[in-house]
Amino acid sequence: MVEPANTVGIAVNPTPLLKDELDIVIPTIRNLDFLEMWRPFLQPYHLIIVQDGDPSKKIHVPEGYDYELYNRNDINRILGPKASCISFKDSACRCFGYMVSKKKYIFTIDDDCFVAKDPSGKAVNALEQHIKNLLCPSSPFFFNTLYDPYREGADFVRGYPFSLREGVSTAVSHGLWLNIPDYDAPTQLVKPKERNTRYVDAVMTIPKGTLFPMCGMNLAFDRDLIGPAMYFGLMGDGQPIGRYDDMWAGWCIKVICDHLGLGVKTGLPYIYHSKASNPFVNLKKEYKGIFWQEEIIPFFQNAKLSKEAVTVQQCYIELSKMVKEKLSSLDPYFDKLADAMVTWIEAWDELNPPTAAAANGKA
Amino acid sequence: MVEPANTVGIAVNPTPLLKDELDIVIPTIRNLDFLEMWRPFLQPYHLIIVQDGDPSKKIHVPEGYDYELYNRNDINRILGPKASCISFKDSACRCFGYMVSKKKYIFTIDDDCFVAKDPSGKAVNALEQHIKNLLCPSSPFFFNTLYDPYREGADFVRGYPFSLREGVSTAVSHGLWLNIPDYDAPTQLVKPKERNTRYVDAVMTIPKGTLFPMCGMNLAFDRDLIGPAMYFGLMGDGQPIGRYDDMWAGWCIKVICDHLGLGVKTGLPYIYHSKASNPFVNLKKEYKGIFWQEEIIPFFQNAKLSKEAVTVQQCYIELSKMVKEKLSSLDPYFDKLADAMVTWIEAWDELNPPTAAAANGKA
Repeated sequence: MVEPANTVGIAVNPTPLLKDELDIVIPTIRNLDFLEMWRPFLQPYHLIIVQDGDPSKKIHVPEGYDYELYNRNDINRILGPKASCISFKDSACRCFGYMVSKKKYIFTIDDDCFVAKDPSGKAVNALEQHIKNLLCPSSPFFFNTLYDPYREGADFVRGYPFSLREGVSTAVSHGLWLNIPDYDAPTQLVKPKERNTRYVDAVMTIPKGTLFPMCGMNLAFDRDLIGPAMYFGLMGDGQPIGRYDDMWAGWCIKVICDHLGLGVKTGLPYIYHSKASNPFVNLKKEYKGIFWQEEIIPFFQNAKLSKEAVTVQQCYIELSKMVKEKLSSLDPYFDKLADAMVTWIEAWDELNPPTAAAANGKA
Repeated sequence: MVEPANTVGIAVNPTPLLKDELDIVIPTIRNLDFLEMWRPFLQPYHLIIVQDGDPSKKIHVPEGYDYELYNRNDINRILGPKASCISFKDSACRCFGYMVSKKKYIFTIDDDCFVAKDPSGKAVNALEQHIKNLLCPSSPFFFNTLYDPYREGADFVRGYPFSLREGVSTAVSHGLWLNIPDYDAPTQLVKPKERNTRYVDAVMTIPKGTLFPMCGMNLAFDRDLIGPAMYFGLMGDGQPIGRYDDMWAGWCIKVICDHLGLGVKTGLPYIYHSKASNPFVNLKKEYKGIFWQEEIIPFFQNAKLSKEAVTVQQCYIELSKMVKEKLSSLDPYFDKLADAMVTWIEAWDELNPPTAAAANGKA
């Protein structure tokens, strides 16, 4: 049986990495008591809380945390008509937090995620590991059999081309889950008691050209490098689909990272995922996605961006056009989603006007 | 400090998997005392020992092992003029063992590899894990973030297309090394004291389209599926290069597995690699490879086999033509190597005449 770590008595980290350069984004509909347990690791950081559902409900945030909170009224006020691109009654609304942040890095975590233990019983500082992942390069062009070559005690193995050892910048760090694994509804139904108890002590780069199922539960990224592509789509209220928000973002960011020569890592850190969501409710949300993904994934596997697309925004707009052209035949939903992708970019640029440096070619 | 396992007192496995369908191939120039330690796991299997160097030297094999041994005189006698494709004074000669085997599976291991311990201290039965890897499918078309989905306690995660969950047949299982990592000479020189102490409890499929550095030290494969591509090239005596035998085979098998829809796995099992080879000697063997690989790897990354190539032999002959055409300009060595690739296939087919079943389209 795997248990969460006990963090009582662990002192708050006095020298947290990137304290002023990172925001923690949490989508929620309830009191954030789970942050008590994260205090030693997360309290020094600024939180952006995106309150989903009823805006009149008061969300309690544990004392000592510095935060800003946005409910649906705030989103509507800030974005005006462009608020239509932000999902309602679905954790996909978290991407509004990515947009209003002014920091370089984002860590996003679900409110049912607790602190995991490593095999020695030590509490895992998930954010610290994400930051390490983001600050050291990725190696997407050739596989390293000893996993992350930049980690202490590891390196590139014999036969790894020297020209590729500098690696590329890491844009995304995808963490994993002990206890309740991130399964789809059919797998939940078939294996209701399966728990993930295996701590795999590895971080690896997902190779160029390979797509992966990105889960938004325990995820960090470099906003400057990939932020505008971290759109979690249209889910929840009024939409025919749910639980594909992070998947959609994962397909988009991977195609764009591959095009722009950026890296995506997966593996450590683990969080402890406390509760399985209801598989019957999940099935209702997922069932269209389950058959749509059989066409969507080949679409993304074959998506080729043009040489002219050199910024994330340009890449994303190109993708939106391809979605409209190639996926609308699957369902009118994709026509709407393609439009929302454009709205998202417009809203992003409005809230994040290019700096002089970026306008001069940095991007 | 990482230590090998102590296997004294472990009983020989009374029900070894695939006992009559697997050969263990060991290239060597010395007495095979290392097999004492492997007795509980390897004694039930048949060994094919390929003796390198002086054929008059007598190699001692621990009692109780069933084996056949081939020295250079045997290779010359069996293959005649085609023996030119088998390397001399280099462990690349091991591939002769793949060719003379009549079994479906091969496990090959170096004679400086001892039994590793898992984190609980238990001796790792490397061959058993390789067999598990080979007998369960691979998933090369989409990345599974919880690693091998077929392992007990794991599965495909949310967002993994259902149409891909059956997987494909696994052709190759690449195991790793505790203690002395498989580094090239420059890395050995820079980090003489680095030891691999990290046991990563995972097996994964190397995605389609991604090449990897295949090490021949601890490797298993399905001879029926990929055997004719497991040629370790021309190395050692009279050749301008060494220590690229397994790399060459790795590039070739990966391109062919990708073309034929077969899987390649890496990760578990670990062996304990006891001694680092001399980095100065290694540098001399490797230095041409170190710059050649900068062109060879893009060559293999771009190699496209034709639809007409439906058997491993046909794929390999196509590859040999591309090598001649595209790599001969790098060095006349590749012209010779391309010819040797053809000779290898001729020799393979001579020793392994197609069965009636295969001739009727099984291959």
